[in-house]
Amino acid sequence: MYSVKRVVRLQDIDAAGIVFFPKFLEYCHDAYFEYLMQSGIDLPMSIPSGDYILPLVHAEADFKLPLRFGDEITVCINNAEMNTSSYRVNYSIYKNDESDTLCCTAQTVHAAISRTTFKPLKRVPEEIVNVLNMQCKSH
Amino acid sequence: MYSVKRVVRLQDIDAAGIVFFPKFLEYCHDAYFEYLMQSGIDLPMSIPSGDYILPLVHAEADFKLPLRFGDEITVCINNAEMNTSSYRVNYSIYKNDESDTLCCTAQTVHAAISRTTFKPLKRVPEEIVNVLNMQCKSH
Amino acid sequence: MYSVKRVVRLQDIDAAGIVFFPKFLEYCHDAYFEYLMQSGIDLPMSIPSGDYILPLVHAEADFKLPLRFGDEITVCINNAEMNTSSYRVNYSIYKNDESDTLCCTAQTVHAAISRTTFKPLKRVPEEIVNVLNMQCKSH
Amino acid sequence: MYSVKRVVRLQDIDAAGIVFFPKFLEYCHDAYFEYLMQSGIDLPMSIPSGDYILPLVHAEADFKLPLRFGDEITVCINNAEMNTSSYRVNYSIYKNDESDTLCCTAQTVHAAISRTTFKPLKRVPEEIVNVLNMQCKSH
Repeated sequence: MYSVKRVVRLQDIDAAGIVFFPKFLEYCHDAYFEYLMQSGIDLPMSIPSGDYILPLVHAEADFKLPLRFGDEITVCINNAEMNTSSYRVNYSIYKNDESDTLCCTAQTVHAAISRTTFKPLKRVPEEIVNVLNMQCKSH
Repeated sequence: MYSVKRVVRLQDIDAAGIVFFPKFLEYCHDAYFEYLMQSGIDLPMSIPSGDYILPLVHAEADFKLPLRFGDEITVCINNAEMNTSSYRVNYSIYKNDESDTLCCTAQTVHAAISRTTFKPLKRVPEEIVNVLNMQCKSH
Repeated sequence: MYSVKRVVRLQDIDAAGIVFFPKFLEYCHDAYFEYLMQSGIDLPMSIPSGDYILPLVHAEADFKLPLRFGDEITVCINNAEMNTSSYRVNYSIYKNDESDTLCCTAQTVHAAISRTTFKPLKRVPEEIVNVLNMQCKSH
Repeated sequence: MYSVKRVVRLQDIDAAGIVFFPKFLEYCHDAYFEYLMQSGIDLPMSIPSGDYILPLVHAEADFKLPLRFGDEITVCINNAEMNTSSYRVNYSIYKNDESDTLCCTAQTVHAAISRTTFKPLKRVPEEIVNVLNMQCKSH
């Protein structure tokens, strides 16, 4: 399990005084991006010149507890589930209070597609499988 | 069905050259906010002083076609499904090309909660039901 | 003078209950983008394949009155000042209350640069001058 | 001088492939927020219940070099200049390349205002002066 701590910023809050819901998905994607980068997947290079791209085809989130300005939180990548030419990443967001309250669960589904033909690959690229399975093993 | 046209802006695009996925949910929420406001639900007044609040408890989206800078799109509220103390709103986003290509479907689920006790209401407030049913009738 | 009306959205607000300051600059840029597009400057095409680009080299804003959720505002492009290879655009944002209170003034400065050599052009392209001077005439 | 490192994220980029200009001001404000929090100024508590607020009255930035996805940058608070009832904070953003290229300079001006009367204070609160002067000393 990979996890990253962050603090809810002034601008993450909406007029209801709580984190605006699409920001939860940004928190998850930030963790995903950081994890891939730390694992040696060079996303900034792969977008213009790699063999494949990994666009999102689905995202969802359940909001269990609102978050407020200054809340300290932990964003976790729990694991990833591999399919033929796509994979699902599961996230949890916890508030760093006494009981580590679960605030949000979320999922993103990514398709593995040829960067030139835009057709689905026969399987998720091995370097991605390795990185996301390491993920699972360390869970 | 309520629908609103908009143009994909420079800042909606990410490093992959396409709309960053949480922005699709913002597009949907903007349409939902506009529809409620036009229907006489005064959200800016209701947050600090109304009887109830309507926080999101779930959101999800399927991304079928990437959108790019300058694309003209239509964001539709298709209908709403009422439950005891919550409701689900269904959205579709179309690209305004020759075949009005469906780019994204999305859903948001809102709980109806007392603003003072934070407990679920026994039913979704009538003014909200009326507004969202009008929605359904005009479909 | 070109102007566009908009309503302050839930997500434009920060934890202090007012519009987060960089959003004022986004409001201005949205008006600038809309004005150029309506005037026939095809920005989505010009970025990948035009002769020149018009990057911002400076931006500033004075915040005179905070804006809140639901406020109806008017974003105005007042005029543009041409220099050799750059131009300055001046904006005002008004709250649509009884006295049309001025809330913010802002400026953006854009350089005219060759898209291939990244060197400054000898002068701002004529189509841009024409569009932004029409702007001034209609003031 | 306080400084913080960060990486340009996918969603900070716009359709021109570079960081959207208001994001530079967000980078600066994030550094300012982190510095105040680390120095013991509890902004999340002070907004609803403190004696004073510190709204922005001016912001500006000069953009010297565009930033791209994946760029590693350092955001610096250089110093703060105190006036009677306001203060100016000066920022620099560097790209962490071989020559630490300066990409952006920026300034924010904050007024010190009573939270209840909204009138300017006679002077900037001492705890803020102390924190921002420590800032200058460590430069």
